[in-house]
Amino acid sequence: MEQKIVFDTIWVLITAMLVFFMNTGFAMVESGFARAKNTVNILSKNFIVFAISSIAYWVVGWGLMFGNGNGFIGIEGIVGLSGADNSPATGDAYRGVYSAIGWASVPLLAKFFFQLVFAGTAATIVSGAVAERIKYLSFILFSFILVAVIYPVAGHWIWGGGWLAQLGFWDFAGSTVVHSVGGWAALAGVLLLGPRMGKFRDGKIHPIPGHSMPLAVLGAFVLWLGWFGFNPGSTMAADPEAIARICITTNTAAAAATLSSTVVAWLVLGKPDLSMTLNGCLAGLVAVTAGCAYVSVGSSLIIGLTAGCLVVFAVIGFDRARIDDPVGALSVHLVNGIFGTLAVGLFAQDHFTPNTTGNGLFFGGGVALLMNQLTGIGVVGLFTSTIATAAWYLIKVTVGIRVSAEEEIEGLDIGEHGMSAYPEFATSSERYVDVPEKRPPAPPKHKLSPDSEVAVEH
Amino acid sequence: MEQKIVFDTIWVLITAMLVFFMNTGFAMVESGFARAKNTVNILSKNFIVFAISSIAYWVVGWGLMFGNGNGFIGIEGIVGLSGADNSPATGDAYRGVYSAIGWASVPLLAKFFFQLVFAGTAATIVSGAVAERIKYLSFILFSFILVAVIYPVAGHWIWGGGWLAQLGFWDFAGSTVVHSVGGWAALAGVLLLGPRMGKFRDGKIHPIPGHSMPLAVLGAFVLWLGWFGFNPGSTMAADPEAIARICITTNTAAAAATLSSTVVAWLVLGKPDLSMTLNGCLAGLVAVTAGCAYVSVGSSLIIGLTAGCLVVFAVIGFDRARIDDPVGALSVHLVNGIFGTLAVGLFAQDHFTPNTTGNGLFFGGGVALLMNQLTGIGVVGLFTSTIATAAWYLIKVTVGIRVSAEEEIEGLDIGEHGMSAYPEFATSSERYVDVPEKRPPAPPKHKLSPDSEVAVEH
Amino acid sequence: MEQKIVFDTIWVLITAMLVFFMNTGFAMVESGFARAKNTVNILSKNFIVFAISSIAYWVVGWGLMFGNGNGFIGIEGIVGLSGADNSPATGDAYRGVYSAIGWASVPLLAKFFFQLVFAGTAATIVSGAVAERIKYLSFILFSFILVAVIYPVAGHWIWGGGWLAQLGFWDFAGSTVVHSVGGWAALAGVLLLGPRMGKFRDGKIHPIPGHSMPLAVLGAFVLWLGWFGFNPGSTMAADPEAIARICITTNTAAAAATLSSTVVAWLVLGKPDLSMTLNGCLAGLVAVTAGCAYVSVGSSLIIGLTAGCLVVFAVIGFDRARIDDPVGALSVHLVNGIFGTLAVGLFAQDHFTPNTTGNGLFFGGGVALLMNQLTGIGVVGLFTSTIATAAWYLIKVTVGIRVSAEEEIEGLDIGEHGMSAYPEFATSSERYVDVPEKRPPAPPKHKLSPDSEVAVEH
Repeated sequence: MEQKIVFDTIWVLITAMLVFFMNTGFAMVESGFARAKNTVNILSKNFIVFAISSIAYWVVGWGLMFGNGNGFIGIEGIVGLSGADNSPATGDAYRGVYSAIGWASVPLLAKFFFQLVFAGTAATIVSGAVAERIKYLSFILFSFILVAVIYPVAGHWIWGGGWLAQLGFWDFAGSTVVHSVGGWAALAGVLLLGPRMGKFRDGKIHPIPGHSMPLAVLGAFVLWLGWFGFNPGSTMAADPEAIARICITTNTAAAAATLSSTVVAWLVLGKPDLSMTLNGCLAGLVAVTAGCAYVSVGSSLIIGLTAGCLVVFAVIGFDRARIDDPVGALSVHLVNGIFGTLAVGLFAQDHFTPNTTGNGLFFGGGVALLMNQLTGIGVVGLFTSTIATAAWYLIKVTVGIRVSAEEEIEGLDIGEHGMSAYPEFATSSERYVDVPEKRPPAPPKHKLSPDSEVAVEH
Repeated sequence: MEQKIVFDTIWVLITAMLVFFMNTGFAMVESGFARAKNTVNILSKNFIVFAISSIAYWVVGWGLMFGNGNGFIGIEGIVGLSGADNSPATGDAYRGVYSAIGWASVPLLAKFFFQLVFAGTAATIVSGAVAERIKYLSFILFSFILVAVIYPVAGHWIWGGGWLAQLGFWDFAGSTVVHSVGGWAALAGVLLLGPRMGKFRDGKIHPIPGHSMPLAVLGAFVLWLGWFGFNPGSTMAADPEAIARICITTNTAAAAATLSSTVVAWLVLGKPDLSMTLNGCLAGLVAVTAGCAYVSVGSSLIIGLTAGCLVVFAVIGFDRARIDDPVGALSVHLVNGIFGTLAVGLFAQDHFTPNTTGNGLFFGGGVALLMNQLTGIGVVGLFTSTIATAAWYLIKVTVGIRVSAEEEIEGLDIGEHGMSAYPEFATSSERYVDVPEKRPPAPPKHKLSPDSEVAVEH
Repeated sequence: MEQKIVFDTIWVLITAMLVFFMNTGFAMVESGFARAKNTVNILSKNFIVFAISSIAYWVVGWGLMFGNGNGFIGIEGIVGLSGADNSPATGDAYRGVYSAIGWASVPLLAKFFFQLVFAGTAATIVSGAVAERIKYLSFILFSFILVAVIYPVAGHWIWGGGWLAQLGFWDFAGSTVVHSVGGWAALAGVLLLGPRMGKFRDGKIHPIPGHSMPLAVLGAFVLWLGWFGFNPGSTMAADPEAIARICITTNTAAAAATLSSTVVAWLVLGKPDLSMTLNGCLAGLVAVTAGCAYVSVGSSLIIGLTAGCLVVFAVIGFDRARIDDPVGALSVHLVNGIFGTLAVGLFAQDHFTPNTTGNGLFFGGGVALLMNQLTGIGVVGLFTSTIATAAWYLIKVTVGIRVSAEEEIEGLDIGEHGMSAYPEFATSSERYVDVPEKRPPAPPKHKLSPDSEVAVEH
């Protein structure tokens, strides 16, 4: 038994580190897909958000999610992991107030670390969708609320032994718990913020290309790597068969989605657009997250192929609906978070994890599981959207939510942070903004940050 | 015994993840060493290649390499790992059709994951050498063939229990199996493609500097990190003495080669050229790969020092031979893959891994081992060159292999992908191309992507 | 017992790899915080420094640090780990000349690998502070001396069983051993070098912004990740409770410092400066390094909050003192290395690691521990400053230490390495230099590297 604690703790901590590293991936993808003039702002958001999450989840989030309570909320041992707990004791030997996660044979702080990096992921998803027009302070406040309250409450229902878990809703590594919760929270923000200036004008959709593809690719690779922590680590135990298989279902879905999104983009857009390839990969990873432990490798291939198609049409669809998501976060995390959760109801096979999901529709299990999955998707979506909208609205009427038009044109880097991401390089972000009287004639002006010659006397 | 399965699976999966991460390293090194106008194309190739490899190796590659068969090819259980296998049982207890890798006490899918990331490495090596003029589709097709057929067949001879293994040819972690196979496949492509426009003109060699040294350095560091998975992971078992020692032989060779390539470049070129330092490091890593488990730390130092010298002269030599390799992939992977394989015949010491290599020439073992190594190098080179040339040729006469001159001048990013890597930055890649009538007078034009003002109506 | 060797070796090697990866983090942070024209030089320094360290620590550093000897220096088995050693035997069963680290139940080369990556960290810290004006060769020479002699001798006193260890000075993972030693060595170099041209002129402090915030953020994330190797790995044993707790004290300090530095910068400078956020995070990590195993999570929060404040005022303070540290290395590593070491004397709680530190001042332990910590800080500072100054001076009078004014204006990339980091991009680093007659009128000239059109005939 004691040996198992050592194995499992090594596995949980190392996979948690990989998930932590996903913050880097999101920072690189999101800044790569946005404009140079907003880079410092995006990087700042994606850097500070894990610090915010670390505090918010410690102070109250963990307890709301895993504390003993009722089907809707954790009640005991909420603040600062202060409840009784004799981890790594498990099963009947466990004595403590975090019973829902009492099955994991690792120390309490290892459990906390692993769950914290998941909470942080939900928060960092929001950053990309609201990029290039949100106030820095507003994002910070919302992130705190998301990780302290919204994420843990929905999480309690599913991973904290709450009512959805009791109903028979299954989400192995978080297509719903993490990705679609982050996605719904992002959508609420996007709708309140409105689109970026210049994105939709003259009845047309104006693509605003990202400023650095190397950053985007670096980020996507780091996320792919991080997912080998996210999914196989969610066993929270070094079970050889399970973790090896989850590595392969995860990778297969990512590979299949990378290929299908590339092919679909090639057919639909005429060229193999790299941003579609990258978002395709992420879509496949999100989609297989719920079912990675429950489905066969063959099924993961189909899930991935489907996710890669979905993401391309979702990006086009959100654009047509005039919903402006600069990095495709809604198409990746919300749409494929939903799809991946549904896929459990279709592809699950009982024998992989006996006495959990049972069989999905395609393997003779009927529609019962699928109905449970639909219920969970709907309820979590409704809950998250409602509370997130309320939170965003509260922020809007207090500190405000969107930067001024002048700041948006100039770039949030100068406006929010007083600095440029690339002060020595000639760039020209402003030409994508529809403010004719402010746009220079061709050739575009090579802008250098206005603060560059300022001397400071301390 | 059961504990060993847990240890070994943790070790194999984590080191496999590190090797997976090498894809990131190759993407960053290769795009950093190429021009801005071809960056999206290189990144796309290096991103999609692992997706291609994942499918190709699953569908048929694994079975050809490790399926029971004859000395030349695997025959049983080829498609989709469909053969019988009771891993992690080992030795006499193993029952299955993948006997050649039956010694590893980890689940089948852990074996597959580890071998898959190696296959992916061979494919990504090709990308750099053929960069800046190959069609995207052609590269995709070749990568599929390489990972589905060429790599697994040569691999079967050595790691799959085939005729070279029976002969007494030793390649611990793949100087030949991975690196020189990738290198020979790349060379075949380079010869069919011809040099980039402007590289060799007026009887002179025109250096075409890489567009971003931070990307190149980032990539080289990631590769160095990844090699701690590549070499120590190739034990496929958490054997403390072996993995600790392989970490140090690997690192020592990398460090020595970093220093020797820097010194040689300083002496020969007059300055400590950073690209030589980086390629020196990689050369040392490639060279120690075959022998990392068989040689002493002192020997790894000598191997590294030699590799660092070799790579500098190889880069100069390929240039003089009018063989255009934009990133130095041939000098790193082919030349040092060969050297590293030979080095086993020189530096191996029997006592490190009893009953495998025996002693090399410098440790009293005579020339027998060296002859076996030479045989393997020659045969694998001949086989890979032949089949790769045939494959490239088939692609050339069907879908074509090289982009048009106009596209090469404009950059493959626009031509192949319809997008720019850095749409907001003023760049000037085109001045390296020898097309006088298209080259602007000084100062160079600051090019902005032509698609930047296009409005799209979905 | 044998199982423990396997666990511990896996843990030590993987955490060592994470610490190795910190070289990447330093390279990215430091080049991001410096100017484009010096990027190749900084990258070269940060890449080669680990190669230098690998050789220097092997040749003599390890033995001076861990060889049996007296309270001041290791004497036995110095060169090339040549001493007797029967690791992984421990305790009474250990037979060898590296007794001070005989407690770790891993093979000798695993111990060496882990200690090597720490030595490398100390050396890479220096790089940032002396950036943008030091000769490449001089940095290489100093790094060798630092890792071969200075770091190991000070390290022997503390981790090698020397006189400070016997006194009762505690530094769990190296706030003093690694960070302040690196910081003092850097300060000595900075004082001998003097500030960069243009930094202090006309009685004013001229900020010289870093050229790429994405690189800086990438680097800071990689360092945060690497610290999960640095601190939890310093157990050199997979002790579940300890490593889980150290992950959380480390992360909590980083998060708290990220937030406090951001808030303080916002209040003091008027904007949430991203470079302060990043340096704040690193400051928190440095500060918790000494005490991560000895303090509670709540204490780590306070240590982090304090470190984040300290670093902002330190950056401002060094500027006012006309000490030019381009990346804030002194504020991060020296100031917070000292603070973190002191914090052990304040926040240590005996029950976390019985029979080591005892309680600190705030937990009823009186001032005894605090006095020991002060003694160690003072003595190590005095020793390192003295020897480092002597070493820098020796280098100055032999090969020289600072590049010429012309080279500094043009950039060290061309001068030292003959290449540009971004040869195709229009940049304008030179406008930060105070050489009026050389500065172009507005708009700034877009500089392209002069070597771009040169044809080379081999």
